[in-house]
Amino acid sequence: MPRLDSRAPDELRPIRITPGYQTYAEGSVLIEQGNTRVIVSVTMEEKVPPFLKNSGTGWVTAEYAMLPRSTTTRTPRDSAGKISGRSQEIQRLVGRSLRGVTDLAALGERSFTVDCDVLQADAGTRTASITGGYVALYLAFSKLHRLGIFKSMPLRSQVAGVSVSVYKGNILLDPAFDEDCNAESDFNLVMNSRGEFIEVQGTAEKKAYSRETLDAVLALGEKGIRQLFEIQAATIKGL
Amino acid sequence: MPRLDSRAPDELRPIRITPGYQTYAEGSVLIEQGNTRVIVSVTMEEKVPPFLKNSGTGWVTAEYAMLPRSTTTRTPRDSAGKISGRSQEIQRLVGRSLRGVTDLAALGERSFTVDCDVLQADAGTRTASITGGYVALYLAFSKLHRLGIFKSMPLRSQVAGVSVSVYKGNILLDPAFDEDCNAESDFNLVMNSRGEFIEVQGTAEKKAYSRETLDAVLALGEKGIRQLFEIQAATIKGL
Amino acid sequence: MPRLDSRAPDELRPIRITPGYQTYAEGSVLIEQGNTRVIVSVTMEEKVPPFLKNSGTGWVTAEYAMLPRSTTTRTPRDSAGKISGRSQEIQRLVGRSLRGVTDLAALGERSFTVDCDVLQADAGTRTASITGGYVALYLAFSKLHRLGIFKSMPLRSQVAGVSVSVYKGNILLDPAFDEDCNAESDFNLVMNSRGEFIEVQGTAEKKAYSRETLDAVLALGEKGIRQLFEIQAATIKGL
Amino acid sequence: MPRLDSRAPDELRPIRITPGYQTYAEGSVLIEQGNTRVIVSVTMEEKVPPFLKNSGTGWVTAEYAMLPRSTTTRTPRDSAGKISGRSQEIQRLVGRSLRGVTDLAALGERSFTVDCDVLQADAGTRTASITGGYVALYLAFSKLHRLGIFKSMPLRSQVAGVSVSVYKGNILLDPAFDEDCNAESDFNLVMNSRGEFIEVQGTAEKKAYSRETLDAVLALGEKGIRQLFEIQAATIKGL
Amino acid sequence: MPRLDSRAPDELRPIRITPGYQTYAEGSVLIEQGNTRVIVSVTMEEKVPPFLKNSGTGWVTAEYAMLPRSTTTRTPRDSAGKISGRSQEIQRLVGRSLRGVTDLAALGERSFTVDCDVLQADAGTRTASITGGYVALYLAFSKLHRLGIFKSMPLRSQVAGVSVSVYKGNILLDPAFDEDCNAESDFNLVMNSRGEFIEVQGTAEKKAYSRETLDAVLALGEKGIRQLFEIQAATIKGL
Amino acid sequence: MPRLDSRAPDELRPIRITPGYQTYAEGSVLIEQGNTRVIVSVTMEEKVPPFLKNSGTGWVTAEYAMLPRSTTTRTPRDSAGKISGRSQEIQRLVGRSLRGVTDLAALGERSFTVDCDVLQADAGTRTASITGGYVALYLAFSKLHRLGIFKSMPLRSQVAGVSVSVYKGNILLDPAFDEDCNAESDFNLVMNSRGEFIEVQGTAEKKAYSRETLDAVLALGEKGIRQLFEIQAATIKGL
Repeated sequence: MPRLDSRAPDELRPIRITPGYQTYAEGSVLIEQGNTRVIVSVTMEEKVPPFLKNSGTGWVTAEYAMLPRSTTTRTPRDSAGKISGRSQEIQRLVGRSLRGVTDLAALGERSFTVDCDVLQADAGTRTASITGGYVALYLAFSKLHRLGIFKSMPLRSQVAGVSVSVYKGNILLDPAFDEDCNAESDFNLVMNSRGEFIEVQGTAEKKAYSRETLDAVLALGEKGIRQLFEIQAATIKGL
Repeated sequence: MPRLDSRAPDELRPIRITPGYQTYAEGSVLIEQGNTRVIVSVTMEEKVPPFLKNSGTGWVTAEYAMLPRSTTTRTPRDSAGKISGRSQEIQRLVGRSLRGVTDLAALGERSFTVDCDVLQADAGTRTASITGGYVALYLAFSKLHRLGIFKSMPLRSQVAGVSVSVYKGNILLDPAFDEDCNAESDFNLVMNSRGEFIEVQGTAEKKAYSRETLDAVLALGEKGIRQLFEIQAATIKGL
Repeated sequence: MPRLDSRAPDELRPIRITPGYQTYAEGSVLIEQGNTRVIVSVTMEEKVPPFLKNSGTGWVTAEYAMLPRSTTTRTPRDSAGKISGRSQEIQRLVGRSLRGVTDLAALGERSFTVDCDVLQADAGTRTASITGGYVALYLAFSKLHRLGIFKSMPLRSQVAGVSVSVYKGNILLDPAFDEDCNAESDFNLVMNSRGEFIEVQGTAEKKAYSRETLDAVLALGEKGIRQLFEIQAATIKGL
Repeated sequence: MPRLDSRAPDELRPIRITPGYQTYAEGSVLIEQGNTRVIVSVTMEEKVPPFLKNSGTGWVTAEYAMLPRSTTTRTPRDSAGKISGRSQEIQRLVGRSLRGVTDLAALGERSFTVDCDVLQADAGTRTASITGGYVALYLAFSKLHRLGIFKSMPLRSQVAGVSVSVYKGNILLDPAFDEDCNAESDFNLVMNSRGEFIEVQGTAEKKAYSRETLDAVLALGEKGIRQLFEIQAATIKGL
Repeated sequence: MPRLDSRAPDELRPIRITPGYQTYAEGSVLIEQGNTRVIVSVTMEEKVPPFLKNSGTGWVTAEYAMLPRSTTTRTPRDSAGKISGRSQEIQRLVGRSLRGVTDLAALGERSFTVDCDVLQADAGTRTASITGGYVALYLAFSKLHRLGIFKSMPLRSQVAGVSVSVYKGNILLDPAFDEDCNAESDFNLVMNSRGEFIEVQGTAEKKAYSRETLDAVLALGEKGIRQLFEIQAATIKGL
Repeated sequence: MPRLDSRAPDELRPIRITPGYQTYAEGSVLIEQGNTRVIVSVTMEEKVPPFLKNSGTGWVTAEYAMLPRSTTTRTPRDSAGKISGRSQEIQRLVGRSLRGVTDLAALGERSFTVDCDVLQADAGTRTASITGGYVALYLAFSKLHRLGIFKSMPLRSQVAGVSVSVYKGNILLDPAFDEDCNAESDFNLVMNSRGEFIEVQGTAEKKAYSRETLDAVLALGEKGIRQLFEIQAATIKGL
């Protein structure tokens, strides 16, 4: 079965990472993955959450929101009162994933907020936020490194995320809109560049999945994530 | 390394499911798993969320909260203004897991709200909510079945959940408090009684994990879930 | 007219107070009064509200909530945004009643939060919260006394509460559900063990009441409260 | 002991009720009781709360707020987010008291909102709201009566409220600021003009009170309320 | 075309400023402008907003609210959750206008909150709040001056505001209700007593306006504001 | 005095309007005015606010928000609970301005929401939202016109807005960041292409301004707006 955009089942969408998109931020990228577009920007503050006071250790956290018309029909702003459950789940995932490769002790008592704002949503916004978030964090950290605030880069490894879906019985890497919305089951994988997992989430949307399917998903996702590491590295080298 | 409560690595905590705990509810259980205690109760309403209006299809949703002193130090109530991100994540997981075994079309336009209220939290409250939630839902559905509202039981399979953690390098089934809080990585598995996965969530809390570790976790979790199916079945048979 | 549950007009429902129900709390009980069941747990914090800063004096406050399915039809959680007027009124009453027998100056600058969570509501939850709250507070204070934090027990007297209703023209002690919901008028009395009143609240729900009725209500309530003092004392002695 | 403002213990403060204060309202008064000043205005709406839909019956409800500088130090507005527990308790009391003399069935499916806004607070604002509220409601109802919307006046009796406090051991009618703030115990009584009670609330603020004290309070309050009925009647007659 | 209340096009409504209306406030007036009535009261606090900490400079801010029945149909309270956009806009304008004539540096680190509460709204409540606010602020400042807290009066000039509307093609000073609600365009002018502008706001409600109209509006408004300065001065002199 | 970016006092910043930026929206542009960048997108819904039900008339409304890192230091999201006063003021201005040139009756009972999301804020975001909003609305309306839903274009004229500031005594068109933040006074002008005013707002931030200054501001602003009309027209012609 050919994919709607004629990609191979194991083929990522075209990816472009534009560094420095929001010029005031300590680090910022626009990541485009097919029609999905997310601005990810990093802000440093000289304070930490209460549970880290006087620990000498820093923190990385994320916020995630969609512009109202990033979606095919308008999504009301969270500002109507509270952050939706979906948004909270995503921002917790992004924060956890980036902390997973950061040497928090080396940050000192500083917080880094990673704002992920979706300009256009065509599936995979949470994993694009992680993949782009790594580059934005790298940019912020290397600026502080150049300024002598950090003695070395407080990153232990790269991190990137990708989605996989089971759609009409096929296992597809990096699903686009329809392949995501109508998936039988839906997976988000986050790995570091040592080949280890930071997060595996597999949800049966319409149909439970077997262990065999899970194994195939993990192999396909790992392949995609390795390509994302190369794209991240090329973006950083190009600076 | 012996476990703090001297269980074997592949041993569940003692589990007791008391049916009919909240007598007004359509279905209700108190599930005790070691020192974790959760009341799960099911309420039916003759209405559905807007996206299901005139679809002929029903819905199952969950709410999750902890009593303030279910925890070692007092946790302020969500009622202070908004539901915490953690609570939202859990209630979304519980709802999704129970919908995964329910024949929603057979419900008619009816909603079932599954309230999970934690009396005492000693790890594993979200998976206990799923395991107990299945029994509470069974009780509610069978009452409606007896009343002739349902022609057959709208459940396709059992569903149960279990946690696994990597703690001091050991892979441990159904971790208790310390094994959960200080885990290197933390997994929640939800399966149906056909041996398929409904949800796999694996999070590196302190340390990324290898594919080998994930494989071992999945095997251990499946073993534990099979025992939970037996406990559920015994509870139901005993009515 | 016999009562629905065949009690005499001046007869309390069966009462059971189980100490130590939530094991993490400084003091905790489950109080069951007929089908009404409330968990009351006490938490100490080493801080006081702003108006007591640097006063050397402590504070006792209460929070009250019902599990959604404690009631015959589901009551939505207060967490939807704000605490209902009824809940606020009750928690203010419970806090005031318990402060009425506590030597606040002897607490030092410490706060005691008394969480009252209703598992099942069959009338009288606010007075049961007070009656059980006294025992939970006693347990918390005596633990701190044993630890040498308090030199003596900072309680001046026992405190307990009871409801009385006028129902179909009869004055009934400790009304159960129907006798409460359909009462002509409804009274809550709180007394200390010196025979003094801490709170008298009498509300004409459907019918104003005469001075004679009020006098009879006060006599009946006092009789019930004296029995509650004995049950509290027996629970404490049994530890 | 002479009172601060040299009144006798059984003497009300000077009371003035100005009808028609907010000219747009269906009924409106400014009630001044000593230095306490409250605007009470009534609004009719052709709708009822959900629980009265299709019942043919109406409703009376109240809202209560203080201007920020009605108090000696500024009280922040409730609009900062939520209505304070105290405000909720008061508006529930005012609504209940006014419903206690209204023939709700005779209203048809109409709601009457009684807004009580405190311009200056020198004790007794809640009972002044009830006493003034009766006149405002009378004005609104008689306007509707004149318009032929009501066939007869849907009021069964007058209603008024008064405070009594125990202050430095003396029982004082209608306490002013200091006699209220520093009272040992504090009572609010609401009666109808048949001499029956609609609400009795007695709270031990600093000291529990005996049955003898309660008896004296009830007698004193009843005397004050009878005078309030005369003032209400004179205001209405004067129109 | 004669005006509804037979004023000349360049004639203000009758204005009365009653000083000392809320007796507890540092400064307070009731300003009546035709049927519009606003209480404006000033509260001093010995603290400043975060951005002025350690600056030695003070602040003046305003809050604005309407009593629910100040309007022809009832306006629900902002306290239902959030301040309406209109209220926020007005209180920002009032605060800005009063700061425009205050020597903030001479205040020291003190905040002055100007509460504007509308008892009756018949157009022009925001400009009446400014005009009355100046007098209330003057009263508060001169009290502090007499107490020696201020060495000199920290006011550089008078400030007052007035509305002008284009209604049925006529340019009208100080419009009343109908002339405001059904205006083609609507102007609010704030000036100091040196003849300079502090704020000009001109909004085309139903019809855009020409430069000629704007010129005429500015001339008419200035004339009205000069009269307001005289009324303010007379009020202050009369103390 | 040369400007920081060496523009002439009457020179606009370079402006670029990119149509079709958010591809799902009915109409969308990215407007860049110097370093200020705003996405403006229009959504149609087949419903109107309550006050227009059954009127046959439509509505245009706006929402405005800034990405957290659009500013030099991070601005917390409004989603923390409520929309800031500044955001509300801006979105009310944008909505009013666009309604000022729209034939609302010709829309039928349809709402158009204009979302203005600031990617980068370097002064003038509210007027850029209006200028860009006109083009986005034009795009949305012409799509509906092509589809035959509108018989003619429901726009009566172009509309655009510009800021002017008095900065170090100079009157400057279209101020950039520093010229805006540190302005003595600050003006926003909105005009239609018939040369009439829709909105004039002039605020003395640090210094009141004379009638002469206001006259000069109006002339300068009108000149700038005429250029904006040409840029809008060129963008539309280029489609």
